[in-house]
Amino acid sequence: MEVTVGVIGLGNVGLGTLEILTENARSIHGKLGFALNVKAVCSRNVQQKKLPALTEPLLRATDWREVVCDPEIDIVVEAVGGTGTAFHIIEEALRQRKSVVTANKELMALRGADLWALANQNGVNLAMEASVAGGIPIHTVLREGIAGDRIVELYGILNGTSNFILTEIEKSNANFESVLSEAQQLGYAEADPSADIDGLDARSKLAILAALAFGEKLTTGGIYTEGIRRIMPVDFEYAHQLKHTIRLLCLARQSEQGLLLSVRPSLIPQSAILAQVKGAYNAIWIRGAYGEDTFYYGRGAGSKPTGVAIVSDLMRVAREIRFGSPERVSPFAYDRLGEYKPLPIQTQKLPYYLRFRVEDKAGIIATLATVLAKHQIGIDAVLQLPREDWRDLPFVITTEPAPEQAIRDALVEIREADFLVEAPFAMPMERGF
Amino acid sequence: MEVTVGVIGLGNVGLGTLEILTENARSIHGKLGFALNVKAVCSRNVQQKKLPALTEPLLRATDWREVVCDPEIDIVVEAVGGTGTAFHIIEEALRQRKSVVTANKELMALRGADLWALANQNGVNLAMEASVAGGIPIHTVLREGIAGDRIVELYGILNGTSNFILTEIEKSNANFESVLSEAQQLGYAEADPSADIDGLDARSKLAILAALAFGEKLTTGGIYTEGIRRIMPVDFEYAHQLKHTIRLLCLARQSEQGLLLSVRPSLIPQSAILAQVKGAYNAIWIRGAYGEDTFYYGRGAGSKPTGVAIVSDLMRVAREIRFGSPERVSPFAYDRLGEYKPLPIQTQKLPYYLRFRVEDKAGIIATLATVLAKHQIGIDAVLQLPREDWRDLPFVITTEPAPEQAIRDALVEIREADFLVEAPFAMPMERGF
Repeated sequence: MEVTVGVIGLGNVGLGTLEILTENARSIHGKLGFALNVKAVCSRNVQQKKLPALTEPLLRATDWREVVCDPEIDIVVEAVGGTGTAFHIIEEALRQRKSVVTANKELMALRGADLWALANQNGVNLAMEASVAGGIPIHTVLREGIAGDRIVELYGILNGTSNFILTEIEKSNANFESVLSEAQQLGYAEADPSADIDGLDARSKLAILAALAFGEKLTTGGIYTEGIRRIMPVDFEYAHQLKHTIRLLCLARQSEQGLLLSVRPSLIPQSAILAQVKGAYNAIWIRGAYGEDTFYYGRGAGSKPTGVAIVSDLMRVAREIRFGSPERVSPFAYDRLGEYKPLPIQTQKLPYYLRFRVEDKAGIIATLATVLAKHQIGIDAVLQLPREDWRDLPFVITTEPAPEQAIRDALVEIREADFLVEAPFAMPMERGF
Repeated sequence: MEVTVGVIGLGNVGLGTLEILTENARSIHGKLGFALNVKAVCSRNVQQKKLPALTEPLLRATDWREVVCDPEIDIVVEAVGGTGTAFHIIEEALRQRKSVVTANKELMALRGADLWALANQNGVNLAMEASVAGGIPIHTVLREGIAGDRIVELYGILNGTSNFILTEIEKSNANFESVLSEAQQLGYAEADPSADIDGLDARSKLAILAALAFGEKLTTGGIYTEGIRRIMPVDFEYAHQLKHTIRLLCLARQSEQGLLLSVRPSLIPQSAILAQVKGAYNAIWIRGAYGEDTFYYGRGAGSKPTGVAIVSDLMRVAREIRFGSPERVSPFAYDRLGEYKPLPIQTQKLPYYLRFRVEDKAGIIATLATVLAKHQIGIDAVLQLPREDWRDLPFVITTEPAPEQAIRDALVEIREADFLVEAPFAMPMERGF
């Protein structure tokens, strides 16, 4: 007996999935002991799509309802994306008692827990390995591989576009705008890059991973989020002087006070394995109470790496269907998710990197040092690289570990100073890996 | 309804497992939705063991048959090790229709496929996440996380003791013997270190991972294996000059000719993420035909990291039992394993690092170059660090990519030369990651 699949959405991810299901059919059969056959595909312009050689007869639909309501289809792949139609597709498929495999991080971060409840009611499964860090099987790892551990900290580089831009700035010393437009030309960044470079994409992914790791029902709202628009090449020069580099770091840190989540550019030591993550790659560093440190690295996106995640989910769900297995593991790892009470980022105590752009004059350091001292922030180092333009001099102060609230209060006060060219820029210096 | 566990073997791994099951019970219950309770423990000297506070009543057995035949036990943890008693424990438990979770790499590499067949006959499961790379959930990754991919290459650092010794030699420039005895004092190496430093432990692990990745029934016999005894501090000096480092590398490489497996000290580029794996850590680099490169890193051993692997397996198996699920995924990922025909290492074509220790005299390079040329091996570089003792001068030749057979033939011929202090030492230079 075979298990049958319908694929809705024939963009990069949908086509990559079809290609793997076709080309790799022998290896998939070898693992499952039965075949996984595509019986329907759906896209608004399905007639114009060039599909890999699929087992016929194949339903080519333009209306997703045809696929979702087809009694011959066992599992629906939702590869449409977004939170509109995709939601209706998944909801209706689950009601039709079809299991669903999705790559939709935005939707799963927003409505995933409700959709899983609906799947449960209908006795079917909902799988989303592809929703975070495409080629890295991080869902499987958290849900099953290290399920026995209690996660304490999780650090991720989860947005390939931002990582590509940051490592290009680091390599070429070019400024943010020119690297962004290069990334757009190469197809690494979208025409509207905001979701990537403002940290929103990374935030959805962090919300999903944090639910899996800590068992809390998260929405993206409670996550402090800051993108990479303010990063200048000079920040890398200063970071290197400090033997650090800069990454858009997603973090989830469990402490006695609660669970802290944030997405923001951060300094990380060059000696850390995370600092080796370059270009469009993703990575996750996990610290468990028992298993200690583990690290996972791979392609963050791409038609085939994401396709592997979808096909691997299909295989798992297909096994359940084939063997009439009533067992379902929540895609969120926990049987029931708790309610997340966001821990304010202001409580975090870390050393900070403070970059100022100033019009040079006497007494600047004295002014800054006085304000920092007033907020009980210790100075670790003052760094200034030689620069010619005295009207726009960037320099850096690194601090001793200080509460984020104190840093913020100090910077608000400093913002009034007449020597500043722009508002001061702060990044935490992370050392937890 | 709870699921009950019996733990046989109360060494480090057995005790670590009990500790996690006790301390982390709340999180485990939160994920499963039911409890996982230890009902029996067994060890020859069970009365002297200090156990974590377990749910009573608890059977404390000295004879494993008591646990295996106890009708109240659902899952047996085999944490005895070795290929003797452990085999009988697992065999009998499976016959008694109990699922088994084991950390036993040696036994699983040797008899795993047969034991899985027996488990299948009896409708129970056999799980072995803990058998390779303790803290890294690499079984789960290969069996489920990236099951949809077709693996092309797999590189592993799978023996923590060897990696500790190599990175200590690299750091301190001390010789092999003194670092080994330091490792023995620290408990990183056994009194009889042969299984670790001669590559036998890594070989068992590679055999298991290669079965999961490539679906072939492997025995350790077909795997070319070479340990780290011949590594000298000067090898790291030369490797660094070449911007490389040295690791005991396990590799499985699929090509049109077949599947090549080997365990041997190899040069790897310092820029590779694998080169960042230091101390007693393990790591695996996987290249898939579709998902491209992924990388996994963590503790290779240790009571609790290995315990996490065992507890995670227990949770998966417990779900099956609790929900009467007939679905079983082979611990070897493939429904049926094929028969492996070893591809001889002699067919491998790579650049090589050849280290000679010579009594200095005129014409040595000429002699060596002539022999290499005769075997059609191109020379890439000749390196010689300044040394004082002309009677024992180490120097290095690196070659263009050449077949291993040609290298071996050339070295056999060179071995006759009167200027050699010892037989030449060859390592491949790996670049596949």
